Amino acid sequence: MRAKIQTAVLGATGYAGMEVARLLSRHPRVGASLLFRREAEGHGNEVVPPLNGNSQPLQPFSWEVIEKDKVDVLFLATPHDVSRALVPEAIERGIRVIDLSGAWRLKREEHRAIYGFCDSDPQKATCLTDTAVYGLPELNSEHIAGAQLVANPGCYATSVILALAPLLRAGLVDRERGIISDSKSGVSGAGKEPNARTHFVSVADNLSAYAVFGHRHVGEILEQLGLESAEFTFTPHLLPIPRGILSTIYLRLRQPTTACEVEACFRDFYAGRPWVRVFAPPQLPQIQFSLHSNYCDIGFCLAPDGQRLVLIACVDNLLKGAAGQAVQNMNLMYGWNDKEGLN
Amino acid sequence: MRAKIQTAVLGATGYAGMEVARLLSRHPRVGASLLFRREAEGHGNEVVPPLNGNSQPLQPFSWEVIEKDKVDVLFLATPHDVSRALVPEAIERGIRVIDLSGAWRLKREEHRAIYGFCDSDPQKATCLTDTAVYGLPELNSEHIAGAQLVANPGCYATSVILALAPLLRAGLVDRERGIISDSKSGVSGAGKEPNARTHFVSVADNLSAYAVFGHRHVGEILEQLGLESAEFTFTPHLLPIPRGILSTIYLRLRQPTTACEVEACFRDFYAGRPWVRVFAPPQLPQIQFSLHSNYCDIGFCLAPDGQRLVLIACVDNLLKGAAGQAVQNMNLMYGWNDKEGLN
Amino acid sequence: MRAKIQTAVLGATGYAGMEVARLLSRHPRVGASLLFRREAEGHGNEVVPPLNGNSQPLQPFSWEVIEKDKVDVLFLATPHDVSRALVPEAIERGIRVIDLSGAWRLKREEHRAIYGFCDSDPQKATCLTDTAVYGLPELNSEHIAGAQLVANPGCYATSVILALAPLLRAGLVDRERGIISDSKSGVSGAGKEPNARTHFVSVADNLSAYAVFGHRHVGEILEQLGLESAEFTFTPHLLPIPRGILSTIYLRLRQPTTACEVEACFRDFYAGRPWVRVFAPPQLPQIQFSLHSNYCDIGFCLAPDGQRLVLIACVDNLLKGAAGQAVQNMNLMYGWNDKEGLN
Amino acid sequence: MRAKIQTAVLGATGYAGMEVARLLSRHPRVGASLLFRREAEGHGNEVVPPLNGNSQPLQPFSWEVIEKDKVDVLFLATPHDVSRALVPEAIERGIRVIDLSGAWRLKREEHRAIYGFCDSDPQKATCLTDTAVYGLPELNSEHIAGAQLVANPGCYATSVILALAPLLRAGLVDRERGIISDSKSGVSGAGKEPNARTHFVSVADNLSAYAVFGHRHVGEILEQLGLESAEFTFTPHLLPIPRGILSTIYLRLRQPTTACEVEACFRDFYAGRPWVRVFAPPQLPQIQFSLHSNYCDIGFCLAPDGQRLVLIACVDNLLKGAAGQAVQNMNLMYGWNDKEGLN
Repeated sequence: MRAKIQTAVLGATGYAGMEVARLLSRHPRVGASLLFRREAEGHGNEVVPPLNGNSQPLQPFSWEVIEKDKVDVLFLATPHDVSRALVPEAIERGIRVIDLSGAWRLKREEHRAIYGFCDSDPQKATCLTDTAVYGLPELNSEHIAGAQLVANPGCYATSVILALAPLLRAGLVDRERGIISDSKSGVSGAGKEPNARTHFVSVADNLSAYAVFGHRHVGEILEQLGLESAEFTFTPHLLPIPRGILSTIYLRLRQPTTACEVEACFRDFYAGRPWVRVFAPPQLPQIQFSLHSNYCDIGFCLAPDGQRLVLIACVDNLLKGAAGQAVQNMNLMYGWNDKEGLN
Repeated sequence: MRAKIQTAVLGATGYAGMEVARLLSRHPRVGASLLFRREAEGHGNEVVPPLNGNSQPLQPFSWEVIEKDKVDVLFLATPHDVSRALVPEAIERGIRVIDLSGAWRLKREEHRAIYGFCDSDPQKATCLTDTAVYGLPELNSEHIAGAQLVANPGCYATSVILALAPLLRAGLVDRERGIISDSKSGVSGAGKEPNARTHFVSVADNLSAYAVFGHRHVGEILEQLGLESAEFTFTPHLLPIPRGILSTIYLRLRQPTTACEVEACFRDFYAGRPWVRVFAPPQLPQIQFSLHSNYCDIGFCLAPDGQRLVLIACVDNLLKGAAGQAVQNMNLMYGWNDKEGLN
Repeated sequence: MRAKIQTAVLGATGYAGMEVARLLSRHPRVGASLLFRREAEGHGNEVVPPLNGNSQPLQPFSWEVIEKDKVDVLFLATPHDVSRALVPEAIERGIRVIDLSGAWRLKREEHRAIYGFCDSDPQKATCLTDTAVYGLPELNSEHIAGAQLVANPGCYATSVILALAPLLRAGLVDRERGIISDSKSGVSGAGKEPNARTHFVSVADNLSAYAVFGHRHVGEILEQLGLESAEFTFTPHLLPIPRGILSTIYLRLRQPTTACEVEACFRDFYAGRPWVRVFAPPQLPQIQFSLHSNYCDIGFCLAPDGQRLVLIACVDNLLKGAAGQAVQNMNLMYGWNDKEGLN
Repeated sequence: MRAKIQTAVLGATGYAGMEVARLLSRHPRVGASLLFRREAEGHGNEVVPPLNGNSQPLQPFSWEVIEKDKVDVLFLATPHDVSRALVPEAIERGIRVIDLSGAWRLKREEHRAIYGFCDSDPQKATCLTDTAVYGLPELNSEHIAGAQLVANPGCYATSVILALAPLLRAGLVDRERGIISDSKSGVSGAGKEPNARTHFVSVADNLSAYAVFGHRHVGEILEQLGLESAEFTFTPHLLPIPRGILSTIYLRLRQPTTACEVEACFRDFYAGRPWVRVFAPPQLPQIQFSLHSNYCDIGFCLAPDGQRLVLIACVDNLLKGAAGQAVQNMNLMYGWNDKEGLN
């Protein structure tokens, strides 16, 4: 029996990858992690930059090093096509994978189309699509525990699914009237690649909507919640802040309901789940409250008619929306406490 | 015939009042304005602070000075109760008033209740409520032209009403399915009074919703658009930027419609209106585009089903949402060009 | 022998006090802390707000509760006059105090004058002034270990003193030519009290200098570094960020020196000190690098003449500049590792 | 006699070029401007984006179009090597040039070296270097009036030179003790090119120094002020704001002096100069005060010893630091009022 597991991170210079590396470096059950850079990331042999800690050595990706180090879990913080190409070999080698990209989240081909890997997809990848487990611990913990391949959810999707699942599963929502999520994200959600959209001057003192009716995260939201495309409208916005997501969600309840009943629905659903905090009205989550934590905060406001409901859900897009959730999934996969290494 | 009219501004140290003073100082048809401070604003006899220009003398409010200066138009950038108290006398003295507060915007008592001035309201004020004209030039120019008292619209309301009026008046909207405005505003919309909510550390790196189902601007939106309370949901959010509003508005069209038809509806409605810019898809307004201008920018995105519609409307809350619109109203009241003094 | 010590925090709703409470709640050697609110802070019996964690109960300050709980260390995150009034009794009761205010940092009366407590100072307080220990662990660890009363340094002072001490103590600085610190701080350094200066609209998109030649932290910098007033110029600026300090320090070396020698001077001085990171040229610290950590980062740039030297020093004003340093002092007082509870 | 002059702008999609285009479109003495894009800027035939106004047509650069349009003044908002290549032909064709790059600002070859165009410089360019006029109107108006080629100053340089010139020319400064400018700039000063440094996440919640002892603007500051390299230290910093510069300048006066004398020195020097505002102590300029204006604001704080002096100078880097100053230079070149088109 080994005291600690061995982990590796590929893409450790991106925002999410750096957070995974940082969390693993403090995790009591994890040995020193291998940090790999992607080829596109240059030739430095140094460093995750010394943000809030000391730098760590970075090396080019190599299966040999992975085998030699007896890596148990490989975290992929890579573009979806890189994940699509690498994962089959990792699984063959018996290495468990937690993939932070969108490569394995979607079961239905019509949703995968937006990622553009449907046609060229090798046979191996197609098989894995069916066995990959959607890594939202609060909804899916049993399957995650035994998974070889965990598809870590999208940041927006995490906030929307966690806010809607309790009400939908309880059959309280008038789905025909439609559900809307007006979501707002900090800029790290757009990735580290510099472009005109992420230039400081484009973002500061600004707010903009984008990808209306066409965002990649819609597919996983529909699949996880069992919604049809026509039932769900999603508008993401780019906020002038580095990190954090707030989703304002609008729906109509099937019957007049009290705030107490709504709150009870959430509290029952998330009983024993340490990383979801349900707010009692009139208190509402704000982005600051969950920043730099693994919490998903959920609050709501019910109209006097008892039917129109506004939900507010917040996550830190790099933690509960990415790296923190990935570590939470690892905890589940090894039977450790949900909070291990995440406080 | 006098070459220029005389104006006065009360509340010239607040954000909106300062902008009115700045605009009037550059208006070719307006002489040097009297700038009054409110009593609550201390005893300095100096200054609108030298933002982007030279400071201007400030004095305590006085009817005598107003009479002596033969003021034609009085701009009130004051709390609604101050406006409620002062306006009857101004009207009696034959001075036209453009009031930036919420004191005179609402016809229906149930909407006015939220301002709390219903009970103590003097008879004179009640009469004026009926004769006050809602000062949204693109919808109401004929009544504004002859008005003695113009109730300048709220900043959020301006963005929402201008975005919705064309479609509603054309009967295209399925009102039963409900209309939602998810609106986001910069901090100057919350006023200059320092408090825990406007402290830099509370706002920066944050986003928060507030006054859900209970914001003061809902009443004027309902009245101007002829909507019932149950048909409209409004959620304002506080953005970490100094100024600017973006409203994301969700509705369902009664019938499948093309983007061309939607765009044509907007272009027809706003033909000849220089301060509304209609964006052709897929371009969408952003807060930056209308900042420091009097424009209201409107764009939209139509779902493939041709029925679900997302509107984006942006204004600078201190200009088209307050001071710029006030000057536009003055232009209408004197038969000048809509753009006079606003470029 | 007790396994853990007991601590209490007074002023646990302010920015620094909240950070102290947060750090103590995770410290492995500390039991559940008592959190006291100051009287001025209202009557809520709840909460440090649930920032990144769960809320904690808050109570009015009481010596009885402190005695009953057998508090070992009392942290004061209070205005200096409150600290001045409370500390003598705490010391009499045998409770060790770590005071985050400026009440006990200054030995020379001419420096204390700026705080205004010289005249009314009780005899007890005057005695304590002499025995209070300036709590900068990297310079003063021996005295801190045995101290009853630790005066936790100011945030600006921490960055300036740690950057200058190695060179001054090595006699390398041409003091006659003068030393200048141009320092910039995030807004949390100005405290939680809302006022015109901390209003979001006043700070965003802005930078301003203040208290030039008159800032309270100058006294402790002079005393700790043994400088005369004429030798040191200090200009603080208010940055549009919530937290973090960067000091750009200008001095002239007595003799032409190499960058290697300068770096060696810093590395020797801070050998074995985990919370100071010395940067090798040309890398320079940035505020982001030390944010949310207890590090003080120091870098430098030497002119080609080998004499003009620019130092850059960064701290998180709420951690190494306040709460983190306070916990580091507690670690020293109890003989624990410098890093205990601070990772 | 033509009523209006004809102008053209090359580089009208960059930050400074867009501001030039915007200012020219409102200038009463200027006809519709030609707007050229640089080849590197893609093939769109549209637009300066509709920031605060309507979009304007953009075309590829062409001498034929310039000749056909009888352009009087060509504004270059281009990289210095593009300016270096284009200007000789413009001058030959009799077109006056206002160049916003660093191509023609420097007389001394040792200063030009940093731009890297010394070796490959054609003969024509070398000649023009001598005849180019440094376009700082408050110091150099006589030469600008008759200039064929105006080298528009750098943004940092404008703030530093205007703050120092009055005292240096009056012989009040102890130059041997050294002058330091600790300058801070918004991100638009770094240009529109997206890169790791200008990514929102790199800038927000941050402050960083760069190019210490090696910034390109040092040369023009030394030349214009007649300083030796050893007498002047310059440290630029990148602020988390879109625009605006604040320079904090440290110097020692040769003799004890009163604040009145210092203020008088500035007021005398800038008498009749509308775009420099001198602040009376204790009021100091802030970046917000001059934002979106062509003002350079100057204030100061004198130590009790009457010799240590801290100057604060602010400009909007895109206006007085670039486009506004360019238009001011054009006003001088045609004998118009300094303020024409700049209010």
